[in-house]
Order: sequence, then structure tokens, then C-alpha cells
Amino acid sequence: MLHLRSKTDQRWLRQVDEHLDEILIDHAHCEKKAAGTALNLIFHYVEDRELCREMTAIVNEELDHFHQVLDLLARRGVRFRRLKPSQYGRKLNDLASRQEPQRAVDRLLVAALIEARSCERFQALADHVDDAELRTFYQSLFESEARHHATYTRLAMHYASERDVLRRLDELAAAEAAIMATGEAVPRMHS
Amino acid sequence: MLHLRSKTDQRWLRQVDEHLDEILIDHAHCEKKAAGTALNLIFHYVEDRELCREMTAIVNEELDHFHQVLDLLARRGVRFRRLKPSQYGRKLNDLASRQEPQRAVDRLLVAALIEARSCERFQALADHVDDAELRTFYQSLFESEARHHATYTRLAMHYASERDVLRRLDELAAAEAAIMATGEAVPRMHS
Repeated sequence: MLHLRSKTDQRWLRQVDEHLDEILIDHAHCEKKAAGTALNLIFHYVEDRELCREMTAIVNEELDHFHQVLDLLARRGVRFRRLKPSQYGRKLNDLASRQEPQRAVDRLLVAALIEARSCERFQALADHVDDAELRTFYQSLFESEARHHATYTRLAMHYASERDVLRRLDELAAAEAAIMATGEAVPRMHS
Repeated sequence: MLHLRSKTDQRWLRQVDEHLDEILIDHAHCEKKAAGTALNLIFHYVEDRELCREMTAIVNEELDHFHQVLDLLARRGVRFRRLKPSQYGRKLNDLASRQEPQRAVDRLLVAALIEARSCERFQALADHVDDAELRTFYQSLFESEARHHATYTRLAMHYASERDVLRRLDELAAAEAAIMATGEAVPRMHS
């Protein structure tokens, strides 16, 4: 359903165990970034009415999640601060074609894969962490990320045939799995 | 209350009479732009919790207005399309200091003045147009733009004293009135 080619490994779960606060802070930034991505898509494809409607819903939801994570940090006494982001998003976005309409397809599918990976990681976190509040929180986010993945994939079909979209999704999912396999030393949601 | 130094003149109301559809299309783009401005402020001042909360509310409201204008256009059979924006926003943003924290003050006050001018123009439109649906619509937007103006002005006081903020607001309001007095030939919400 999520079109991912790999599962989160033990290496990342060890990063979580050692740097949970930093992963939580990065999570807040990721929700904010997801809102930014959806709003950027409205700016670039403003004549696509369905896209504007769906992206508006996603902006609202991601900003709501952003504040949920900030509240969680405050309850835990963790100071929210700026963080250098992981390379994951940039590496994926660098794969997008420069040429429309392929660029629209690629941007939407990259967003779909980021949602898919976040979804898969929330499930991994919900299974892994001991903290009851966190388990419940991660489970509550799982469903919306899966829905966003489906929305982005469906919208890509405004710009290419279903067959071409699914073929490209396969290619990008392979690239995404390779980026994940490389990993990053700095502990982040997508390290 | 709105800190504006001038009132909308007959020249602009003549543009409205002659190019109402184009003004409506530009209005949709302005609502989208206002959402973008609020989200950018979250990105730049993410450690300011009250700012993030207020900007989230503004993003949601402006996107709601954006869709309200798109619905209005659809009911009137006007095709929504891209438009070259007026120079107004760029000219105002060019006045912002490059140096923090003054840049935060200036960006917030420029946003406050754009909201104020939009508010003033909605009132002028509600008084001017014959169309009952449009009158009601413009009146409905008036209150939220006035509230946003007050929010932006209050948030600027996170980055400078009240006295300095009000002095700078005076300066920027004078510059805004001068930009408005110059006008633009192309019919826009802020031409």
C-alpha cells in the first residue's frame, strides 16, 4: 500500500534509543516542512482545483501535527530549537525532473514517498518505544500519513497516465530505499 | 485602528468597474499569497511559539478565503488563471531591514499594512459594488483582515519595544500610502 522497497532497520532504532529528544524536535520540523511542501504545490499548480483542495487539507493537518509535537515537547520539558535537517528530503527532491509536466509527477511522488516513509517509521516507533504517551501519539499519526501518501499518488495522475505514474513511483521508491540504506550519522526522523 | 495614511481613491474604483473579473482573480491569488507569508514567518521565527500559533490560524483562514474566492469565480463562470501580480507587495517588502531583529519587526509590520489595506479596500468595495453577493462577501472578509492587522502589529512587539514598533509602523504606513498614490495601470487588488 505504501509502495516502499525497504523496512526501517535496527540501526535507526538505535539512533532513536540514544537521541529520542532530537528525533522529536526533528519530527516537529518535518511536520512544518510537510505543510510547506503542500503550500508550494498550491503555488506551482494553482489552476488544478482538486490539488488546491487536497493540499489545503494537508497544510491544515500538518500544521496541527506540528503543534501537537510542540505540545508534546513542552510537556516533556524538551526545548524546541532549530536543527540542521537530514539530507533525505533534498536527495529525493534532487531526483525530480526539471521539465513539466514530469516535474509535477515527480514532486507529487516524492511527497508521496516521504509520507509513506514517515508512516512506516511511526509504526516502527509505536512498536519500539516503551513510553505509552509516545506510542499513542505515533499511532494517531499513522493513518493520516497513509492517507496523504494515497492523495499525492492519485494527484500525480493528473499529470501522467496511471501506468506511467506507477512505473515512476517504482523507480523513485527504489531510489528512496537506497537513500535510506545509506543512512545518516545525525539522528533525524529520516536518518 | 488600521494605521493607514490614505483612503482608496476613485481611480481604483474605476479600475474595479472596468475589470471586476480580473480584480476577483487577483483577490484569490492575494489570499494564497497571504497564507504563504504567514507560513514563511513560521519558518523564519519557528522558536516564537505565539507567532507559530497565530500564523497557523492565519494560514488556515487565508486558505479558506482563497477557496471562497475560487468558489465565487466558479459560480460567476469566471475562469481562474495565473496573473502577473501587482508591484505593491514587492515594493513594501523591499523596505524591510536585512538585519535581525529589525527584519522581523519590518516583515510583521509590512504584513500588518497589507492586511490593513486589504481591509480598507474590502470596505470600499462593499460600499461601491451593486452586486449583493459581492457586497456580503466583502463585508464577511473585513473583520478577519482587521484582526490579522492587529495580530501582526502585536507580534512585532516580540522583537522591539512598543514605542519603536509604533514609530516604525508610522514610517512604513507613510511609504505604503506613497506606493498606493503612485498606483498601477494593471487592475489588481492593490493597484
